[in-house]
Amino acid sequence: MAKISYVNGRYVHHAEGAVHIEDRGYQFADGVYEVMAFYNRRFVDENLHMKRLARSLAELHIKPPMSAKAMRMVMQELLARNDRIDGTVYIQISRGVAKRDHHFPKIHDSSIVMVITGAKMPKAKEVREGVSVITCPDLRWARRDIKSISLLPNILAKQAATAAGAREAWLVNDKGIITEGAVSNNAIINSKGEIITSPKDNNILGGVTRETVLNLASKAGLKIVERSFSIKEAKAAKEAFLTSTTSNVLPVTRIDGIKVGNGKPGTITMQLLELYYQHIYKQTGKRWS
Amino acid sequence: MAKISYVNGRYVHHAEGAVHIEDRGYQFADGVYEVMAFYNRRFVDENLHMKRLARSLAELHIKPPMSAKAMRMVMQELLARNDRIDGTVYIQISRGVAKRDHHFPKIHDSSIVMVITGAKMPKAKEVREGVSVITCPDLRWARRDIKSISLLPNILAKQAATAAGAREAWLVNDKGIITEGAVSNNAIINSKGEIITSPKDNNILGGVTRETVLNLASKAGLKIVERSFSIKEAKAAKEAFLTSTTSNVLPVTRIDGIKVGNGKPGTITMQLLELYYQHIYKQTGKRWS
Repeated sequence: MAKISYVNGRYVHHAEGAVHIEDRGYQFADGVYEVMAFYNRRFVDENLHMKRLARSLAELHIKPPMSAKAMRMVMQELLARNDRIDGTVYIQISRGVAKRDHHFPKIHDSSIVMVITGAKMPKAKEVREGVSVITCPDLRWARRDIKSISLLPNILAKQAATAAGAREAWLVNDKGIITEGAVSNNAIINSKGEIITSPKDNNILGGVTRETVLNLASKAGLKIVERSFSIKEAKAAKEAFLTSTTSNVLPVTRIDGIKVGNGKPGTITMQLLELYYQHIYKQTGKRWS
Repeated sequence: MAKISYVNGRYVHHAEGAVHIEDRGYQFADGVYEVMAFYNRRFVDENLHMKRLARSLAELHIKPPMSAKAMRMVMQELLARNDRIDGTVYIQISRGVAKRDHHFPKIHDSSIVMVITGAKMPKAKEVREGVSVITCPDLRWARRDIKSISLLPNILAKQAATAAGAREAWLVNDKGIITEGAVSNNAIINSKGEIITSPKDNNILGGVTRETVLNLASKAGLKIVERSFSIKEAKAAKEAFLTSTTSNVLPVTRIDGIKVGNGKPGTITMQLLELYYQHIYKQTGKRWS
């Protein structure tokens, strides 16, 4: 079955999916995106993703290309046209095509692209043993709360991690505070069992998985402290983990080569992962064995 | 004569110019660009632009899609195929098409797009009376020295200026220092006749027009001081101006509604503009009357 993507009103063979060279997404990074996981062809936390997408568009004054209802119909149609049981849908919306000029065009037709790909879940070994992260300076712009396609600093940090053989880069500001990962949120757990994670402000993207996991943790009676934490504090933590749509809850067992706790995935982290698996199961029927 | 653009090896009708939806320029702002002016079909400061383009590519480890010589040939061919005597060429190069993953693809074929447009020179009235600028917080990432397409903060600032009826937004960091404009470099002139402009570091893009104008000023015996200046200092300056490929040297006569000096274009500014006109004339034969 050929891979089919959705581009501005048409379902096309993926290889033929194209946008105009003067799409403002291409010339100015003037757009936003979402990545949503699905299992058994059912989306995880669809409402939260759609809500965040609407917020990102509103923050940048980009007109939604269609109603949320219509967008969900396209997502369903793409699932029907692609041969994937589990996977992710990537949705990108830009301010559309206009003669190149920095200020917004007076009127605009937003562009929308959707692409289905296979699931990119962590390997069993990564979950069992935990992953390594490196730290990098946080070079990003000041509005990380918007899920924009202005991702050049993120890819440079992720590339640095990949080159170092690490799973992710944790971004450190000029005060030594870890804001979040290049492509994920993160948290540490101290010796009192408190889950410490950066507050939801302009310094981080409010991750959907982050939000869900914090809700699950709270319901399970775990203590959550939303505050900044330093690189020093992270390296001295008992446990650490990261969250994202494609990582679920992933134990972090090394930061810059330094063992976190005893160097093995922590018990609270694994409890959170189990709770998150149950959450996915309730929404999609997907089981991890 | 139809508008012809160049896209990845082909000369195409501009309306049909397209790139793949998974071009990393579209998904990640993973690319760089240049804008070069031409008059009488001759480029202004071509060597400086080509040098900067090579630097931007090298900083991001993006493979040049072709030799500089080949790129210049495409530029000439585009001039021949388009009906423009004066105008600009826009050149964009991205890391090319790859399945979406933040880290760099192991191998990549860079994408290249070139578009010719008409000259967008300042209006006679803007030169005669000067322009207004507003100030905005500088929200950009930390590597402004790279001419990347990660321009979302720039377009938001430029849009704020446009909405306020101003020509440009001057970007102010959290210490009250003006770094540069959203789409231009800038300078102020104090009562001693010294030209004060931000030093060429990671906080600003090293503009080609900036460099040329500073060289011309230096040869004319004017004093140049490359140092940071504050918003307060700018508002108390005797003269102010901005430079860019499409603005030449443009007098700034109001900052946030406050008159600069006597509210008219300054004499040194107009001297610099005249020197810049002569510079363009020498390279292209273009005369401003």
